[in-house]
Amino acid sequence: MANYQIDLNSDIGESFGPYTIGLDDDILNVITSANIACGYHAGDHNTMYETVRTAKANGVGIGAHPGLPDLQGFGRRHIAVDPEDVYRFVTYQIGALKGFCLVHHVEMNHVKAHGALYNMAATDAAIAEAIAKAVKDVDRHLILFGLSGSELIRAGQNHGLTTASEVFADRTYQPNGTLTPRSEKQAMITDPDQAVQQVLEMIYDNRVIAVDGTPVDINADTVCVHGDNPHALKFVEQLRGRLSEEGIDIRRVGA
Amino acid sequence: MANYQIDLNSDIGESFGPYTIGLDDDILNVITSANIACGYHAGDHNTMYETVRTAKANGVGIGAHPGLPDLQGFGRRHIAVDPEDVYRFVTYQIGALKGFCLVHHVEMNHVKAHGALYNMAATDAAIAEAIAKAVKDVDRHLILFGLSGSELIRAGQNHGLTTASEVFADRTYQPNGTLTPRSEKQAMITDPDQAVQQVLEMIYDNRVIAVDGTPVDINADTVCVHGDNPHALKFVEQLRGRLSEEGIDIRRVGA
Amino acid sequence: MANYQIDLNSDIGESFGPYTIGLDDDILNVITSANIACGYHAGDHNTMYETVRTAKANGVGIGAHPGLPDLQGFGRRHIAVDPEDVYRFVTYQIGALKGFCLVHHVEMNHVKAHGALYNMAATDAAIAEAIAKAVKDVDRHLILFGLSGSELIRAGQNHGLTTASEVFADRTYQPNGTLTPRSEKQAMITDPDQAVQQVLEMIYDNRVIAVDGTPVDINADTVCVHGDNPHALKFVEQLRGRLSEEGIDIRRVGA
Amino acid sequence: MANYQIDLNSDIGESFGPYTIGLDDDILNVITSANIACGYHAGDHNTMYETVRTAKANGVGIGAHPGLPDLQGFGRRHIAVDPEDVYRFVTYQIGALKGFCLVHHVEMNHVKAHGALYNMAATDAAIAEAIAKAVKDVDRHLILFGLSGSELIRAGQNHGLTTASEVFADRTYQPNGTLTPRSEKQAMITDPDQAVQQVLEMIYDNRVIAVDGTPVDINADTVCVHGDNPHALKFVEQLRGRLSEEGIDIRRVGA
Repeated sequence: MANYQIDLNSDIGESFGPYTIGLDDDILNVITSANIACGYHAGDHNTMYETVRTAKANGVGIGAHPGLPDLQGFGRRHIAVDPEDVYRFVTYQIGALKGFCLVHHVEMNHVKAHGALYNMAATDAAIAEAIAKAVKDVDRHLILFGLSGSELIRAGQNHGLTTASEVFADRTYQPNGTLTPRSEKQAMITDPDQAVQQVLEMIYDNRVIAVDGTPVDINADTVCVHGDNPHALKFVEQLRGRLSEEGIDIRRVGA
Repeated sequence: MANYQIDLNSDIGESFGPYTIGLDDDILNVITSANIACGYHAGDHNTMYETVRTAKANGVGIGAHPGLPDLQGFGRRHIAVDPEDVYRFVTYQIGALKGFCLVHHVEMNHVKAHGALYNMAATDAAIAEAIAKAVKDVDRHLILFGLSGSELIRAGQNHGLTTASEVFADRTYQPNGTLTPRSEKQAMITDPDQAVQQVLEMIYDNRVIAVDGTPVDINADTVCVHGDNPHALKFVEQLRGRLSEEGIDIRRVGA
Repeated sequence: MANYQIDLNSDIGESFGPYTIGLDDDILNVITSANIACGYHAGDHNTMYETVRTAKANGVGIGAHPGLPDLQGFGRRHIAVDPEDVYRFVTYQIGALKGFCLVHHVEMNHVKAHGALYNMAATDAAIAEAIAKAVKDVDRHLILFGLSGSELIRAGQNHGLTTASEVFADRTYQPNGTLTPRSEKQAMITDPDQAVQQVLEMIYDNRVIAVDGTPVDINADTVCVHGDNPHALKFVEQLRGRLSEEGIDIRRVGA
Repeated sequence: MANYQIDLNSDIGESFGPYTIGLDDDILNVITSANIACGYHAGDHNTMYETVRTAKANGVGIGAHPGLPDLQGFGRRHIAVDPEDVYRFVTYQIGALKGFCLVHHVEMNHVKAHGALYNMAATDAAIAEAIAKAVKDVDRHLILFGLSGSELIRAGQNHGLTTASEVFADRTYQPNGTLTPRSEKQAMITDPDQAVQQVLEMIYDNRVIAVDGTPVDINADTVCVHGDNPHALKFVEQLRGRLSEEGIDIRRVGA
């Protein structure tokens, strides 16, 4: 009998100064990997300190979540950055989070790029290479998260990194394996059952049915979930419940 | 026969984005320890990458130079920060520089606080404690630089850190061992010979003559020098020449 | 029969990029003057655009709320800024808000300094002078808000500005007319009735009873209220209701 | 006899905090319009205060030079900003500079977008529209600078603004009237005589010869020049000298 395993990851630690965002304490109860903002697109040294501590206390895998230098745009706006620049700011951000891992006596487990940087790394080979190389050069034991089938996964494999292919529960896919852009009508899956079903199919069959009905090959090492509002949080609880019922092993990648 | 040793340290890596500051390549030829800005009061990920590389190539000791979060004020303005906040932003900045040490395969050697943070740590025991504890918690092998006789040196010793007491060639001292504030007339020593003489006396006799003639006990592990203009650079070359002539061993602290 | 008049002012427009703070739409229904953050300690160009529009739609007096350049510290931390620097960043921030007043075809009514800058201007004559001069030089018709009895009010009067002396409903006073620091036990008034009573006495009798029982002279042109949480908002509604019942004319300063 | 007139404009006021850039005092002696950075891509409130004062003293036309929010990238990197966002940050930046014009009792004359924003506005009609509308809504007497033949000039004309078509002395043109990208070999004109000749032809004949020999219609109201290094400065002096010899009236647009 096959032994299925899945990781649930979420972006956390996005609060900044006087500004609080996200239900971090709650989402940490249901996820297995935390992507912690490192001060470029969100987060600050106080948030990072607290978030690493809480993630460790919850036994959740700790990951650096480097983003574009754009607090105002939350790292979601495309910026025309050089690959060389990317290599360096990813190094900076992983290093900064490493500081907090050191003071909290906990290992960093993974790295996941944020927002526009994540999207750029999915299709732009030079950006993907810059990120993968920075991760390897800082610590070759770090696991590199990336969109399943993306340039980033390829670049990580080329560098000999352990990679984790990421899938989405609440997003639809295009026939070429990319996510349907949010600007399009069919982009989001709002029905929880349908979302759970999509995840189960990705785990069991390594495939997803694209918006036009085409079956697409996919690797599901980790599912991206959200904790920025009570509704999103509730869906993660449902998803986790259903995965458990199926007997799927929910644990952080690499554990 | 006594064997005298001294370190020459300078702040470098203070350029930011399109803005260049400091004669970094030149000063790296004459100093033994480089205090590298970490992005809060100056510097950025590109500057840090380049500076760690060049410092390594010159065999200069690499140090993190954490400062207050104040690029516009260059970290020179007092900000009423909590010790808890200091602990965290020092951790962040050391961690970030550590990232560049990792990708360049070089060890970080020391930490020196910058500007207003350095001054606060000289007299404010809680700030000093926060910095010392952050340094120890990130890496207890890091050498903590601080003003000779300061609270920061005391805090470092309490935490079992190796400390390096810093002295100034071009500044006069008060009877209590603090530096004469720059706002006062006698604050600066502009005569190079007098500056060299002061350093020699500090190295040989562990003392300095204060502005009012009082002899003050002092420890001279490292001398703070500057490379922000050709005049300053020339003085460092003169100082280094004279120290060499005296047979004093010029090498980085801890080497 | 005496005709009493009072203004209710609140800080709004403090959201930044992805971060939302404050119940701005609600508080705008009950106040008469809005102090709008200008991008240094909080707020951004999007928030400013929306806030000026909403404030105008509510007929609320629009004020610039310049603060220290410290988004992370929300402008609440003392920074050792030069008066010359203050003059210039207050000019910058008032000018920026003026841009939004122009595009929305509405007059700016007042200026109130924020947080640490407000506190510094209460007791530091040079800082107060810098703010008052900037306000006058940008537009001498602007009304300058300041703590009743403060250096800022004095500086504004010296420059011939119309001033509005501010009082607090939920804070206790010291015998010298300053606010009891928040760090002290008796600093806050949590009983709504007592807070209303304090405001009424300040309006009717131009005095407040200090924590030690001393009566202190005070001018009450405007009351500082808060809309950052539902509890605070409810108190403002109660206060406004009680003031209305007393027949006090609630309107913006200068109207 | 025809009466030819031309404006020479340059970006100035780009220093930030401790960082100095540009030979502003020198270039102000030879230009007729100054584009002053407003704190988003460069400049700060201190630089703006000083620059407006010096520009006024030199009788140079004062212009706002709004840019993308990207100090690190100097506003030269493309950022995917919404037109609505552009409208608001252009309003903010013009307003901020207006503050300094008010305290120095001088009128603002024009607005020129900076770097990547300038380039986007040349070809993206929605961005161009956002900028033109912000300029008009803040002050419809402001003159809008834009690349000759660009979307920005078109948008300004649609809004009834006075526009100034900008040409380049040291850049070559494509057959469609756009500048040859800097990444291409023939992009820059390094021979001063050739650069002067190009400008003269643009002024006298309203045309420029593109890299492939095609004559292209062009309007030359203002020439973009640079003062960031002694070499560039010397070229501007040469250009100005030659234009004077030709009897061309060198004065700011609108004067």
